[in-house]
Amino acid sequence: MKQQARQRPTLESLADGVLNGDRILLAQAITLIESHRPDDEATAIALLEKVMPHTGNSLRIGITGTPGVGKSTFIESLGQFILKNNKKVAVLSIDPTSPVGGGSILGDKTRMETLSKNRNAFIRPTASLDSLGGVAQRTRESMLLAEAAGYDFIIIETVGVGQSEYSVKEMVDFFLLLMLPGSGDDLQGMKKGIVELADAIAITKADGDNVNRARQAQAMYAQAIHTVYTGATNTPPVILTSAVSGVGIEEVWTAISDAVARTKLSGAFDQQRNRQYVAWLNDQFAALLKSDVWQYDQVRTAQSLLESEVTSKTKSPRKAANELLAAYHRQIKGS
Amino acid sequence: MKQQARQRPTLESLADGVLNGDRILLAQAITLIESHRPDDEATAIALLEKVMPHTGNSLRIGITGTPGVGKSTFIESLGQFILKNNKKVAVLSIDPTSPVGGGSILGDKTRMETLSKNRNAFIRPTASLDSLGGVAQRTRESMLLAEAAGYDFIIIETVGVGQSEYSVKEMVDFFLLLMLPGSGDDLQGMKKGIVELADAIAITKADGDNVNRARQAQAMYAQAIHTVYTGATNTPPVILTSAVSGVGIEEVWTAISDAVARTKLSGAFDQQRNRQYVAWLNDQFAALLKSDVWQYDQVRTAQSLLESEVTSKTKSPRKAANELLAAYHRQIKGS
Repeated sequence: MKQQARQRPTLESLADGVLNGDRILLAQAITLIESHRPDDEATAIALLEKVMPHTGNSLRIGITGTPGVGKSTFIESLGQFILKNNKKVAVLSIDPTSPVGGGSILGDKTRMETLSKNRNAFIRPTASLDSLGGVAQRTRESMLLAEAAGYDFIIIETVGVGQSEYSVKEMVDFFLLLMLPGSGDDLQGMKKGIVELADAIAITKADGDNVNRARQAQAMYAQAIHTVYTGATNTPPVILTSAVSGVGIEEVWTAISDAVARTKLSGAFDQQRNRQYVAWLNDQFAALLKSDVWQYDQVRTAQSLLESEVTSKTKSPRKAANELLAAYHRQIKGS
Repeated sequence: MKQQARQRPTLESLADGVLNGDRILLAQAITLIESHRPDDEATAIALLEKVMPHTGNSLRIGITGTPGVGKSTFIESLGQFILKNNKKVAVLSIDPTSPVGGGSILGDKTRMETLSKNRNAFIRPTASLDSLGGVAQRTRESMLLAEAAGYDFIIIETVGVGQSEYSVKEMVDFFLLLMLPGSGDDLQGMKKGIVELADAIAITKADGDNVNRARQAQAMYAQAIHTVYTGATNTPPVILTSAVSGVGIEEVWTAISDAVARTKLSGAFDQQRNRQYVAWLNDQFAALLKSDVWQYDQVRTAQSLLESEVTSKTKSPRKAANELLAAYHRQIKGS
């Protein structure tokens, strides 16, 4: 029995399991598409092909914020709200700062304990073995699998440090920025670029002694947004929230619903998705081309030799680059 | 006679001209390596091969600063100083903001009038028809040609806006940042990242009514550098300069000479150059690979079709990327 459980599920059972909303098989399907084993590649592609027509019907929400802003708690609250509305929610995390391994997964399960126990919720961190680009590709494919599994809302969570928020912005319909109430210095710390990504800002922990500071922060961020979006209609709202009192969660929900309704009507929703798919294909192709080039020993050997010729000034970089391309071409022709 | 002058010089005459320090043939050689005409490619590579062993003996100095800082005037002063020491100087400009065409070149010649009249100086802006990456490649090759032509100092000038200063840092031995004296707000406007690139900071226009403000700015930048390089020895000096009074130019010269002497002794000079050459080869190869892929109609057609399949959810991006790679492979195999 135990022996049988360890067997890898077949492509058909994985596809059926995902499409039937089986959480265990969905988790196994994500493990498959995350795999770097060359013999998993064909199965992963076949699985994605099977689910692809069943994707795209969910709402994709990106949530970011600096460490300590209370992301997990906020997502737990928002997730509960979604579940109470009889909808299913999947949470996928991109954490470029977390170490690889079981610890991260366990940590996340603990973080969103109530959510993870609900059979209509699915929580999955992406291990950060890959480069950020690699992680982003895997998360996008995990999103497709979760959509095919019938999750109405896909929350893609990332830590608001570095570049991962830009990756997440590129894969979601709505991007929510979480900010702490705090001193007037906050605005300086707030990267202007990140504010420009946001479809809404939620001030977290707006409860107890924090309420006044939270209101001040709200006014300040509203002003910053006003500066960024001079003269625009439908500027991103700034919402006070508290996971403790539950205040603001419904308001965030309404902000998301309103924006989606508006952009679906105007066509901007579909335009953004199409643009994202095209960028996705281009990113994936660029990554694939790169790994195709460097998989060949002969190309890597040629590179080493050419590097030494260039540094010793016996060959120009332009000629060396041409010869490296020729070395790659020879491998393709011989394959 | 006029007819003859219009003929394109041969590879041999270009190579001989460059190696003999002929300024007109050097200019024509740069035009050749900047050319996008496919039939110029082989000649350009052959020319670079001929000059390559004669390169690398010059000192490469990058100079950047925001518009209005007085870059041209400063370079004119530094250039005169170099000429007075019986050395030859070439100034190559990367200006991502300038329009393409004769205007830019004429403008630059006018800007550095005294310098451009001296037969031991050579001034050449790079037309910004290309992407920044393309401009950087051409500037690097122009640098090689100028080195082969016997210019002891190659000054690579760029406008300190956007990304071009990072490109320049990657191709020089010494990176000089020009800053204006001004109010205490300067430090906020000063991008921290740029300060980290600098081997020295020169405060310009430190004359007349500006002297006090320049001194304040000097103290402020010195403090900023101190913060960046806590505990380090040989931190970048901050030097007051004036093109009007001539103050500080020799000090900048000494800062460059000292840094070069020190890094040549420690081996850091050669290490940095080798690292730059390797990065150069990689950049050039990446650009070449990209243009190789998209030169084929069949690959571009495949891309269009695959984009529509992905956006209509009939094919996964991963499979589409694999098929696009296969389309490229077919072209190579058939070539």
